[in-house]
Amino acid sequence: MKKSAYSIAVVGATGLVGGEILQVLTERRFPVGELRLYSSLSSAGEEVTSCGLSALVQPLERAEFDGVDLAFLAAGEQITAEWAGRIQDAGAVGIDLGELFTNDVDVPVVVPEVNAAAVSEYVERGMVSCPNPPAIALAVALAPLEGVVGLEHVTAVTFEPVSSAGRAGIEELQRQVLDLMSGRDSENRRFPHRIAFNLLPQVGELLAGGFSQGEEQTRAQLLRILDLPDLRLSVTRVCVPLFFGEGIALSVTTREKMAAAEARDSLRAAPGILLSDDAAPDTYPTPRDSVGQDSTCVGRIREHEMENRLDLWIALDNIRKGAAVNAVQIAELLTRDYL
Amino acid sequence: MKKSAYSIAVVGATGLVGGEILQVLTERRFPVGELRLYSSLSSAGEEVTSCGLSALVQPLERAEFDGVDLAFLAAGEQITAEWAGRIQDAGAVGIDLGELFTNDVDVPVVVPEVNAAAVSEYVERGMVSCPNPPAIALAVALAPLEGVVGLEHVTAVTFEPVSSAGRAGIEELQRQVLDLMSGRDSENRRFPHRIAFNLLPQVGELLAGGFSQGEEQTRAQLLRILDLPDLRLSVTRVCVPLFFGEGIALSVTTREKMAAAEARDSLRAAPGILLSDDAAPDTYPTPRDSVGQDSTCVGRIREHEMENRLDLWIALDNIRKGAAVNAVQIAELLTRDYL
Repeated sequence: MKKSAYSIAVVGATGLVGGEILQVLTERRFPVGELRLYSSLSSAGEEVTSCGLSALVQPLERAEFDGVDLAFLAAGEQITAEWAGRIQDAGAVGIDLGELFTNDVDVPVVVPEVNAAAVSEYVERGMVSCPNPPAIALAVALAPLEGVVGLEHVTAVTFEPVSSAGRAGIEELQRQVLDLMSGRDSENRRFPHRIAFNLLPQVGELLAGGFSQGEEQTRAQLLRILDLPDLRLSVTRVCVPLFFGEGIALSVTTREKMAAAEARDSLRAAPGILLSDDAAPDTYPTPRDSVGQDSTCVGRIREHEMENRLDLWIALDNIRKGAAVNAVQIAELLTRDYL
Repeated sequence: MKKSAYSIAVVGATGLVGGEILQVLTERRFPVGELRLYSSLSSAGEEVTSCGLSALVQPLERAEFDGVDLAFLAAGEQITAEWAGRIQDAGAVGIDLGELFTNDVDVPVVVPEVNAAAVSEYVERGMVSCPNPPAIALAVALAPLEGVVGLEHVTAVTFEPVSSAGRAGIEELQRQVLDLMSGRDSENRRFPHRIAFNLLPQVGELLAGGFSQGEEQTRAQLLRILDLPDLRLSVTRVCVPLFFGEGIALSVTTREKMAAAEARDSLRAAPGILLSDDAAPDTYPTPRDSVGQDSTCVGRIREHEMENRLDLWIALDNIRKGAAVNAVQIAELLTRDYL
């Protein structure tokens, strides 16, 4: 018999993404019967209300997952690696918002608008992976084009805000802006170079081949979500001095020619896309416009005369659809069909 | 007989680019015998020293070009359009830093490292066009790759600072940052949307096909400089909240396979490039590093295993090599061979 309410755990409940998950669960009236909230020792003790329930945030070291139906893992890869086994043993299903399972074929990587059916593969490891923000946005925008004309060649360049590095990213940009305005030297703590009024073409460590870890992860996740292992795909990820909201410049060569008007129609009709594209009054989505949106915002669709090529611009709330909303959508799929 | 010193005019002498031209002329010991400086009425009256000469900035309406050898036009398209004829009539050679002659086949578009010989075509109209910053950087970085393996398909995405919109751009970002920190509403004057902690995927007006004027100009200029009218080229230009220095993410499909190491060797040996590419200690050029550099800074060269594709990252001082240095290099070519 289907449950009328679920026991939910959030690991990293006081973080940016964890907090947003609690907010989104409330907004979407997710049927929560019990709430177990965990954080590091230093952040524990806060009382949090979500879905009409109040709960005290407990230190993770005292976590108990027996009886938990769904556990959101939003405290980073290391914590997920430490706790995934115990969550599985307790029979809870994990939804990981880190990158730990990017290349684990036994863990599905799911964007509900694109590959909802893949969520059934959660049974293998009791785990579903919620991809990183650019992988989510790119999957939502590319799937309709793949469906109609086929993708040949894709180039994506991201403009990512400091909040994608968590509260430490936000604090670093705030502090550096204030230091600069006060004429003080400013340290680099969270990022390897200054981010205030600068750009860092690096998300995660740089690997031997020259790609960043973040680029490899977005690439691998996107190919899995689209189920196009051989797609010719280039991803460059750049951190920009914004707090919230990200931008992506996307250039797509399609197998068959698609006019811009046709692409607009396809994208307007696709799930999870908010189209905002009108040349005359300078209408396109900026990251600022995307903040608070649960959709992937798309605009500036341009066709190239002599090529099967379309250029697009995407804006996304990296904390909502880029993380919390997508994770809660995954939870909705799991409870609708399996739990 | 070759002149030992030249009469130089600068139109827009009090602007960001005009001021930098005067600085670069001094640094490069350009043989200046006479200096005529012009600006709008409201900025005139300042005394400026360059190349060991002092001159009072005069209002443009009183400009005299008789006897001038070279006139730098750095006051925008409208002023260039008004004055180009009189400069030509006076027998002076104009170097335009606007976009007025982008599509005029009688005016060469010159990046000295790439197509120095084209400067000879100045004779047609007494004019040389100095391209916009991304066209300059892309020409410098792409020419060596075209020379060795041929270019098939190019995607460029720019991250451009507010100084590319002149002092008004700088003032807008400053004001909006202060307004935000003071909790005040902030007007948009120079840009159509807020630029502080935001991104604008628009440089110049949006045209009927969906491309921005800036994108069309960079594209047209680059194809002319490289002399590759049929190159498959996509350019997306985005304004980011930086004051100085720009970034470009470049993805290139080449006719023949080129390994990253080979590309590094070609670019290191190419004129005007400063290569900074080392994965291990997070070494790559940021816009901040590029400020004050006269070279196009290149790093993060990545090869794709299954494709003839290279990804690169470029950083450039948009006011120096992106404008003033390139313009003075053009002047050096003209005086070396023709004037």
